[in-house]
Amino acid sequence: MSAQTIRIESDLLGDREIPAAAYWGVHTLRAVENFPISGIQIGSIKELVVALCQVKKAAARANQTLGLLQTEKAAVILKACDDIIAGKLHEQFVVDVIQGGAGTSTNMNANEVIANRALEILGFGKGQYEHLHPNDDVNQSQSTNDVYPTAIRLGLVYLIDQLLVAMAQLRQAYDAKAKEFADVLKMGRTQLQDAVPMTLGQEFSTYAVMLAEDEQRVREAQALMREINLGATAIGTGINTDPEYAGLATQYLSEITGLHMIKADNMIEATQDTGAYVQLSGVLKRVAVKLSKVCNDLRLLSSGPQAGLGEINLPAKQAGSSIMPGKVNPVIPEVVNQIAFEVVGNDIAVTMAAEGGQLQLNAFEPIIFWSLVKSIRHLTNGCHTLRQQCVQGITANRELLLQRVQQSAGLATALNPYIGYKNATKVARTAVETGRSVGDLVLELGLLTQAQLDEILQPAVLTQPVKLKK
Amino acid sequence: MSAQTIRIESDLLGDREIPAAAYWGVHTLRAVENFPISGIQIGSIKELVVALCQVKKAAARANQTLGLLQTEKAAVILKACDDIIAGKLHEQFVVDVIQGGAGTSTNMNANEVIANRALEILGFGKGQYEHLHPNDDVNQSQSTNDVYPTAIRLGLVYLIDQLLVAMAQLRQAYDAKAKEFADVLKMGRTQLQDAVPMTLGQEFSTYAVMLAEDEQRVREAQALMREINLGATAIGTGINTDPEYAGLATQYLSEITGLHMIKADNMIEATQDTGAYVQLSGVLKRVAVKLSKVCNDLRLLSSGPQAGLGEINLPAKQAGSSIMPGKVNPVIPEVVNQIAFEVVGNDIAVTMAAEGGQLQLNAFEPIIFWSLVKSIRHLTNGCHTLRQQCVQGITANRELLLQRVQQSAGLATALNPYIGYKNATKVARTAVETGRSVGDLVLELGLLTQAQLDEILQPAVLTQPVKLKK
Amino acid sequence: MSAQTIRIESDLLGDREIPAAAYWGVHTLRAVENFPISGIQIGSIKELVVALCQVKKAAARANQTLGLLQTEKAAVILKACDDIIAGKLHEQFVVDVIQGGAGTSTNMNANEVIANRALEILGFGKGQYEHLHPNDDVNQSQSTNDVYPTAIRLGLVYLIDQLLVAMAQLRQAYDAKAKEFADVLKMGRTQLQDAVPMTLGQEFSTYAVMLAEDEQRVREAQALMREINLGATAIGTGINTDPEYAGLATQYLSEITGLHMIKADNMIEATQDTGAYVQLSGVLKRVAVKLSKVCNDLRLLSSGPQAGLGEINLPAKQAGSSIMPGKVNPVIPEVVNQIAFEVVGNDIAVTMAAEGGQLQLNAFEPIIFWSLVKSIRHLTNGCHTLRQQCVQGITANRELLLQRVQQSAGLATALNPYIGYKNATKVARTAVETGRSVGDLVLELGLLTQAQLDEILQPAVLTQPVKLKK
Amino acid sequence: MSAQTIRIESDLLGDREIPAAAYWGVHTLRAVENFPISGIQIGSIKELVVALCQVKKAAARANQTLGLLQTEKAAVILKACDDIIAGKLHEQFVVDVIQGGAGTSTNMNANEVIANRALEILGFGKGQYEHLHPNDDVNQSQSTNDVYPTAIRLGLVYLIDQLLVAMAQLRQAYDAKAKEFADVLKMGRTQLQDAVPMTLGQEFSTYAVMLAEDEQRVREAQALMREINLGATAIGTGINTDPEYAGLATQYLSEITGLHMIKADNMIEATQDTGAYVQLSGVLKRVAVKLSKVCNDLRLLSSGPQAGLGEINLPAKQAGSSIMPGKVNPVIPEVVNQIAFEVVGNDIAVTMAAEGGQLQLNAFEPIIFWSLVKSIRHLTNGCHTLRQQCVQGITANRELLLQRVQQSAGLATALNPYIGYKNATKVARTAVETGRSVGDLVLELGLLTQAQLDEILQPAVLTQPVKLKK
Repeated sequence: MSAQTIRIESDLLGDREIPAAAYWGVHTLRAVENFPISGIQIGSIKELVVALCQVKKAAARANQTLGLLQTEKAAVILKACDDIIAGKLHEQFVVDVIQGGAGTSTNMNANEVIANRALEILGFGKGQYEHLHPNDDVNQSQSTNDVYPTAIRLGLVYLIDQLLVAMAQLRQAYDAKAKEFADVLKMGRTQLQDAVPMTLGQEFSTYAVMLAEDEQRVREAQALMREINLGATAIGTGINTDPEYAGLATQYLSEITGLHMIKADNMIEATQDTGAYVQLSGVLKRVAVKLSKVCNDLRLLSSGPQAGLGEINLPAKQAGSSIMPGKVNPVIPEVVNQIAFEVVGNDIAVTMAAEGGQLQLNAFEPIIFWSLVKSIRHLTNGCHTLRQQCVQGITANRELLLQRVQQSAGLATALNPYIGYKNATKVARTAVETGRSVGDLVLELGLLTQAQLDEILQPAVLTQPVKLKK
Repeated sequence: MSAQTIRIESDLLGDREIPAAAYWGVHTLRAVENFPISGIQIGSIKELVVALCQVKKAAARANQTLGLLQTEKAAVILKACDDIIAGKLHEQFVVDVIQGGAGTSTNMNANEVIANRALEILGFGKGQYEHLHPNDDVNQSQSTNDVYPTAIRLGLVYLIDQLLVAMAQLRQAYDAKAKEFADVLKMGRTQLQDAVPMTLGQEFSTYAVMLAEDEQRVREAQALMREINLGATAIGTGINTDPEYAGLATQYLSEITGLHMIKADNMIEATQDTGAYVQLSGVLKRVAVKLSKVCNDLRLLSSGPQAGLGEINLPAKQAGSSIMPGKVNPVIPEVVNQIAFEVVGNDIAVTMAAEGGQLQLNAFEPIIFWSLVKSIRHLTNGCHTLRQQCVQGITANRELLLQRVQQSAGLATALNPYIGYKNATKVARTAVETGRSVGDLVLELGLLTQAQLDEILQPAVLTQPVKLKK
Repeated sequence: MSAQTIRIESDLLGDREIPAAAYWGVHTLRAVENFPISGIQIGSIKELVVALCQVKKAAARANQTLGLLQTEKAAVILKACDDIIAGKLHEQFVVDVIQGGAGTSTNMNANEVIANRALEILGFGKGQYEHLHPNDDVNQSQSTNDVYPTAIRLGLVYLIDQLLVAMAQLRQAYDAKAKEFADVLKMGRTQLQDAVPMTLGQEFSTYAVMLAEDEQRVREAQALMREINLGATAIGTGINTDPEYAGLATQYLSEITGLHMIKADNMIEATQDTGAYVQLSGVLKRVAVKLSKVCNDLRLLSSGPQAGLGEINLPAKQAGSSIMPGKVNPVIPEVVNQIAFEVVGNDIAVTMAAEGGQLQLNAFEPIIFWSLVKSIRHLTNGCHTLRQQCVQGITANRELLLQRVQQSAGLATALNPYIGYKNATKVARTAVETGRSVGDLVLELGLLTQAQLDEILQPAVLTQPVKLKK
Repeated sequence: MSAQTIRIESDLLGDREIPAAAYWGVHTLRAVENFPISGIQIGSIKELVVALCQVKKAAARANQTLGLLQTEKAAVILKACDDIIAGKLHEQFVVDVIQGGAGTSTNMNANEVIANRALEILGFGKGQYEHLHPNDDVNQSQSTNDVYPTAIRLGLVYLIDQLLVAMAQLRQAYDAKAKEFADVLKMGRTQLQDAVPMTLGQEFSTYAVMLAEDEQRVREAQALMREINLGATAIGTGINTDPEYAGLATQYLSEITGLHMIKADNMIEATQDTGAYVQLSGVLKRVAVKLSKVCNDLRLLSSGPQAGLGEINLPAKQAGSSIMPGKVNPVIPEVVNQIAFEVVGNDIAVTMAAEGGQLQLNAFEPIIFWSLVKSIRHLTNGCHTLRQQCVQGITANRELLLQRVQQSAGLATALNPYIGYKNATKVARTAVETGRSVGDLVLELGLLTQAQLDEILQPAVLTQPVKLKK
């Protein structure tokens, strides 16, 4: 390349040519060469890019306040960061999401892009670091080991916000169905065997309650992300920082983000610990498992149309088969099941990465972060598509459901308190064997009168506790 | 067997001979035959046996209050339960811990043992259920589907209490070491490479803080266990129960246990949901991962004695080798590592079992419970042995540690704010290459005066943030 | 304790009192104190105890051949080992299955029990090691690091033999059902939606074929277990052994066991590598997943009895509910599902333990072994109970199955080649919407004649490829 | 959009506008709308796109041979497929890699792109399916349920080929280092404690042997991928196919790919079974675990430079820290560790997806495939970067290593056969406590003469079995 299309930068390993137009520099170039793994760049995670720039802003303001960074430099660093936060230059964050080095390459990619954007604003050429330096200025008072964890925690907070919206909307969709189906009587099942009556509304309300609990757990895990180690520098001792720096930087970060960021009590612990990620990942796994359970149910309840349970109908979303005409498959629950399996797998990756951390730092935070990003994003997308393409359009086969209740031997359970478990057993078995109804058999055996029976077998009596008459 | 050594009991499958001395009956016999899996009986989990009897007591009292159970029957059921709670008859709980049937066999085992103990107290023979019936009386107003989840949650609360004690004691042991080693300067490491100085006390305080946070998470997960579905019966609709039963039974269970038990808002959801177990298991996994990380560190820091890091000494607990004389191995951390691996595995079993639940019940709660029991017990035992056999006896190789700090190129980082990252890099590289000390090189290059250097390289300056002089 | 009930033994940590009756000694005592984890003793794994003694026999014979061990000592060591192999003294193997120390405690437990049994045979008192020493004699030319891996591999071979028998018997049970149901026409399903016809015999033959393939994979993994590092001693260099020792000991072990044991080419690699365990565990996971899938199917196909698929009936094995009369649940498939979940969890424990091995030895082999033992044993027991208590007794609801085929819109697929995908789609949709049969609709639309239709809709035509007439 | 920029296509759900330039059609459009999950398109997996087209070619040739497809249509389908195989139109494969529907959308995406490319070649406009139909012609005699599994297996074969190359090259790099370091004496370690001497060459040869074994296991798993169910159609009964079709199509696919493809014996089993994927994933996990173990070793052996083991030096690849000058971290092993963690996670996703398959089809094959693709690709990339950026540049600190051997108490083990375990223990302990050498102590205690000692403590004697003189 000619001199006009390249510039030269150097690091401890020597000189390298950098494309003149690139905002990233030599450290980023090394990382790109070292980590050709997934082909996915960190710039594709906009929440991370924004968070990194917010952290750099907080640091710059703290350094300025402490008199460590000239006002002019601080101002232009802030301006450069704001440009990126506004959406510019994300394509310059080119390091692979799967990377060695505990996030150093991500941090240096940010330092270099911010520095070069700042130099540009100042009217200097890219790479003229003597005017504003990626390390000495943009990274002042910082280490990857405090910047990176702080930025990924902040990025996760943003991603979780999106998940919480998706979960709440899905919960509301379940709730709407619960109301719509409040009067639809059906047989409940335990262990896939007919049990006792309930309403389809009760069934859907269950899904809403599950999700509400999960939302609460996600919020608790999200709160853990706001405890940060900014100011810890290399290992948490705060070497190279002013005693007031950590407090100031945390305070500024709170102002910049509008979030209540908390400075960790023990910065050495906070620098090496990955417990909060494991906790978050465990909670995401919980969410995944519950979503998957509901999708299993939806697929089961809508099985058929003729040789299955056929209780509900999922909206048809695409032709189900390239060979079987008219077949419509539960493709939306199926994709959510698969997301769930992936999330459980991601949790194992997070777990092993957390376990593998040694001494004062966990070098494997990049895979922890990337695994969590995938889990949160895919769960978010899964909740949206499940709601929009499936749950909202579910209809019930009311007649079939009622018919099944009336014919069910499971009604015998309702008679336990009146005729005893032993008699009820006999009636239930006979009903299944002969195909006769529980009611007929009870009357025939003289166990109850018609009037007694009528009172017991009402919907309101069947689906909630009832005062027994003695 | 002669008539004197057996009795006959029957269920819907027919008649079976039961050893006359057995307190368990036909339902238990079927379960023993059906589930010859692990050879470990539920009676070996005394927390479960006690919890089951406490639940049965609460139910009996509620039934009595509601006039559903005669006072005499209630009294003797309570007496029988108290005997078992006091430690009697646990060997009569013979069903395998790995069992099908969603806990039905565990519940029936309890019903039968309690009934036969009650019959014995009343002066009747075992099996004379016409006087007091395992189902109609002991299990009155109950279903496995509410009794079993309530009992295992209660059992888990008791087990977690023991874990919390073990964790707190281990934390205190770390704290004691943190104080003991507060003045021991050493090199901190990131990514296994020499980083910057810290104290060995700081290193151990980190472990204490980690554990304190984990204890908090465990307590939160434990609290989720106190929300129960007692009174839900088959699927949560409370069929066969009085409207006041669930509230009363929960209240009595609180009185009996001295714990604040909470009746779930949505009993149908509470009956099928296993989210709280997944949450608990995820938190136990977190604890395991952190314990394992610390044990990895302890093994690494004590590696040697001559060709390793050799920073600390673990107490010798046994000859380390059947062939290598004098070799002493870190056997205690090693066993804790292995417990951690098992706990992560148990979490996957819990996760898959939770995901596999269908419709109104999760049939796989027994493996969920058994996996959690193993995790909690082994973590508890692991914390105790780690504290007693290892942490309390750790000593430091103070001289070696100090010597390493003085010779370390890592000191160059402390000079960043004074001589810049670029100069510091040069000094550090030269130090490593030539084996000369950072101090000498800085003076030789005229970057700092001896006085400046002396002020910077003090322990108190090196291990915390320091006000820079400009 | 008085002098008569105890003896004194010493190790590098000092003197300890040992119960006079104990065959184990001071090293075992230390291990029992250090590892109070699971409460399960290694003696409960008889395959391991036998394997350990076979290895000790092979070593003693090799040492004798090489002139390193006196003939008298060798003879009595062999005699002591034979006693234990015959079933004696297994209760003396008291170390916990979860232990630190890379198996040293297991090896020393064996050395001590064998030595004391040998001393007893020789007429000496226990602990009189000057006559025959646990280390110098029983462990001669050996290290835990070659004895332990060799013994656990051999123990695994024995356990796998039992699993293979159980799998083959289950496969035969599936095959018998495949033959029994060869003429039962039913609707096949994909994605839980009605697809095209098949026979129930075809469905069961599938299960047999799956298992046959799994058996083949298990046998391949078992073969890997026969490659051993006996003679490697501490790290694989064979230090302290005669150059001929490894070959001789391996040859003698083959003779003693009747198995073709193979000396590893690279003993250093063989000493530290755990790849074969990971492979075996992965294959066991595969077996578990497949068993679980079949059990899921069995539970689904037998769901009902009235509000489910109701295609087959599993034999009733116990009352299914403590509250719902007459309810019979699929408890046997449920227990097998749970075993499968545990096996997947065990695989994660094995995986993490394998990953955590460092340098010349994996210290975590005890948890690898224990996890594999649990997986193999529970799968073995699960296959047996699934076959005996469930598969052999399955019956089909033939009429219902036939009826469903005749009414199914899925028949439209069979008409694709004759009327095209687009017409078939229309017919299928109309059939589902109106409840009319595919046959009627095709005739009405004039797409086929009755004669054509009759020829197409025959069972033999529907369940295999058929030559199309053009 | 105007009529010129769109066309109308319809499916059973109604009419939809398709961009006129798009080669994909309405079925693909539905899928894109239904599955907005990961943002990664199937077209990014070129091995899958190629495999799909090869399968379509084989099917077309079989249909032509059987007289079911006109020669002209067959010819143009083959031509269209060849264009895509040559690299054209991959960007038209736009469905998300995470999708519901068991692969139907992937298959339909292929059918549509091939049909429209064929129509283009024939001179027709896109969407003029009356001349050549995606279903009736391109998908003739096929179902997603046989095409998709066949294509992903073929795609996996291609991906595995690349992994095997990367593994073999890495193995050769280890072998080269083994030769280079053949004479470098060092202390071996077990449980991180000094054990006995070995050479650094032996250490690296171990890594080569491990990888060689893994390659063998990968090849075995790859072979399982060549067994296919092409011709099975919907559920394996081969409905809608000619009896000769499956054999012919398999034969043609072998010819087209140059691979020995095998028609499954039981096509119903082959259609629903995912055992081979679980096996492959388990083997990939094994590879990952072993790679990770070696990377752990490399990081440990290169720890320092001053306060670590410092035995070897990894080539510096980038500045290691944004704050610590001159710090160089083991970033390449670190990224490989992280890949390994991801692969273990992917294995869990595969396992759960396999377990969740129901009845005649596993609907979750897309996540199985995507998980395997990630595992294979990242392992391939990881092996390459580990070899190129790390292993090839490793150097040894020979002097330090030798010095450590000479000072080590571990030498006492070598004296076991001459002075007994008890004496050797005493010497070793004294050596560690006093810092004196084993040799000096042995001489001082009169246990051996200088001549004896010299003979024993030679390198060749220390690192392999040696004939003892008696």
